[in-house]
Amino acid sequence: MINRNYLELKDSYLFAEVESRVAKYTAEHPGADVIRLGIGDVTRPLTPAVTAALHRAVDEMGEADTFRGYGPYAGYAFLREAIRGHYGKRNVALGLNEIFVSDGAKSDLGNILDIFGADISVLIPDPVYPVYVDTNVMAGRKIGFLQATEQNGFLPLPDPAVHGDIIYLCSPGNPTGAVYDRAGLAAWVDYANREGAVILFDAAYEAFVTGDLPRSIYEIPGTETCAIEFGSFSKTAGFTGTRCGYTVVPEALVRDGESLGALWLRRQSTKFNGTPYIVQRAAEAVYSEAGFAEAMANIAVYRENARVIADALTAAGVWFTGGENSPYIWLKCPGGMDSWTFFDRLLSKAQVVGTPGEGFGQNGEGFFRLTAFASPENTRRAARRLQDFLRAL
Amino acid sequence: MINRNYLELKDSYLFAEVESRVAKYTAEHPGADVIRLGIGDVTRPLTPAVTAALHRAVDEMGEADTFRGYGPYAGYAFLREAIRGHYGKRNVALGLNEIFVSDGAKSDLGNILDIFGADISVLIPDPVYPVYVDTNVMAGRKIGFLQATEQNGFLPLPDPAVHGDIIYLCSPGNPTGAVYDRAGLAAWVDYANREGAVILFDAAYEAFVTGDLPRSIYEIPGTETCAIEFGSFSKTAGFTGTRCGYTVVPEALVRDGESLGALWLRRQSTKFNGTPYIVQRAAEAVYSEAGFAEAMANIAVYRENARVIADALTAAGVWFTGGENSPYIWLKCPGGMDSWTFFDRLLSKAQVVGTPGEGFGQNGEGFFRLTAFASPENTRRAARRLQDFLRAL
Repeated sequence: MINRNYLELKDSYLFAEVESRVAKYTAEHPGADVIRLGIGDVTRPLTPAVTAALHRAVDEMGEADTFRGYGPYAGYAFLREAIRGHYGKRNVALGLNEIFVSDGAKSDLGNILDIFGADISVLIPDPVYPVYVDTNVMAGRKIGFLQATEQNGFLPLPDPAVHGDIIYLCSPGNPTGAVYDRAGLAAWVDYANREGAVILFDAAYEAFVTGDLPRSIYEIPGTETCAIEFGSFSKTAGFTGTRCGYTVVPEALVRDGESLGALWLRRQSTKFNGTPYIVQRAAEAVYSEAGFAEAMANIAVYRENARVIADALTAAGVWFTGGENSPYIWLKCPGGMDSWTFFDRLLSKAQVVGTPGEGFGQNGEGFFRLTAFASPENTRRAARRLQDFLRAL
Repeated sequence: MINRNYLELKDSYLFAEVESRVAKYTAEHPGADVIRLGIGDVTRPLTPAVTAALHRAVDEMGEADTFRGYGPYAGYAFLREAIRGHYGKRNVALGLNEIFVSDGAKSDLGNILDIFGADISVLIPDPVYPVYVDTNVMAGRKIGFLQATEQNGFLPLPDPAVHGDIIYLCSPGNPTGAVYDRAGLAAWVDYANREGAVILFDAAYEAFVTGDLPRSIYEIPGTETCAIEFGSFSKTAGFTGTRCGYTVVPEALVRDGESLGALWLRRQSTKFNGTPYIVQRAAEAVYSEAGFAEAMANIAVYRENARVIADALTAAGVWFTGGENSPYIWLKCPGGMDSWTFFDRLLSKAQVVGTPGEGFGQNGEGFFRLTAFASPENTRRAARRLQDFLRAL
């Protein structure tokens, strides 16, 4: 009677095991000054432009004349216009009906699978954000893994001999922080168009990208026939507890003669009732002139944190990806140490907490993730300890 | 490659067709004073206790010390405590870990199907809220219909000869407004426990129930082994555009040796990232003393609207369900008229818009839905016109 595919899910012990080891350490070392660089959650508050928009929207909801009930399933036009404007700055022209507002990229990344058959083949990088894997296991799908390794800079390219119907790409990546350049994404777009595959592109960390690297897969020509992109306000504007994201499904994206955008709208209008009006106004404010400047000021703080950690690793001669263009730093544990041994030693010698790479897939063994979301002061203190620890190894 | 079950979905033309006929009428009769009793959306604004809670929560989100990022997947304890308190008033004792907060009952009613196998049998009333049917069609499930008719007061009871794994019940019902009494629900609970079935109980309209009728299926003994209940702040507190609901999965509800609550938490933690903190604070405020009094004052207005419509039908000698204990009034079109003919005549003779029952299932043919969500003044005017129209037939 139950969906027995759920029984095939691995227990997600990773963060629970991290917590348990930290708890044991602090119990044995009362008063230890432990600094956490393991979290993937933001710490800086919503900015003034966003809270002002929320207060205004709450007032509207309290008056009969301006109250809003059920909204459009795909989101209010004012927010879709703002998102379209954001893409326009990078010369990506979207239609309003290609943008679908939601409560977050995680929901959409899971729910999009509803519109695909159960028997398709899926290609997922290893290491990876575990949600891509778990959502496909729940549907009983066959998963092939794209080998992301030190050799390819954790940016796997297509293997023409291996067919996939769905390809997951996340750039800047989680957990590796690695960012595809235009040539890398173009190789995937060529592959997808040739194979009739659909790329699910997770752009949750695009706000961290600088310079000429692509922030949206739609910056690559030919993508409108092969890619769905997932965006989020979580990391861009500190919306992890406020919940807003969006999915872009191009009109030209058709499979088996059916518009994937039409199928997605049917899914959303049947199993979703829209994002709160007040939250949509908050998201709109992120793309106002003041709101965007405030958001980018917060991103600059996180980016500086990442640079501080990256500099410590460089000074210690440790190999890593990310750190630039990403809030994540993915380092190779020195001396062939495994992920959990590195975790335990870093905790006991330097009182710094990170995340063992092994928890993100088998290619993560021997690697370790640090994040840039702590306070600048704690990040600087942790980076000094990390550097001393690495030098003393 | 696509989920071909989507191609089996019927186009949901109902409200589109209503809009098209109203547009045609108003184009042909400029200045016509059309009153709409077709909408299922609330019209009264959020109450002062709710907007005050929202403003406070927004201020918290704007300060680093009180900012909240990712929240618990099942919702904050403060809100689950408030929901538990609401159930406690009816002597239903829930554990906090049996309550799962979400962005609305519609999402949960669709998403809950993820945890069940594709090959189970589903029983759904006819007429019904179309989402129950469409979400199962999307998953390719076999649907049996429970015949809801004038003879059983649109409250079908179990047929011991027909097995279902999943049974949908909505009480007060949409579109019929009919409410099960304790004996009716007890018959379903007995059936479900005997058959090993799971009842999906949609309690979205429980705030409209008065007197001794059950508001929660858990008021019936033995339900903790056979029912999942879906609750919503949409109609209770005008949250249709603010988005908050919850699902109750009792700990004792086990199928194939697995806890359905554990499976649901796994589904939600994998494909959902929680309800906005500010919205959870708003929902908590609904169950404060002031907030609940304000919510009930709004419900009283809608309930009085329903009574006014019901009185007009009684005066005209027309058979109906609902009107009491529900915002919906489900009437039998007089003289054997079909639903759309009644729609057209009511619009052209009385300038009142409702919803043809045929759009909710084949047993809806010959019936018609009116709703209590218009303003009191418009409802009184529409009821007078309706009574005159029916008398003149």
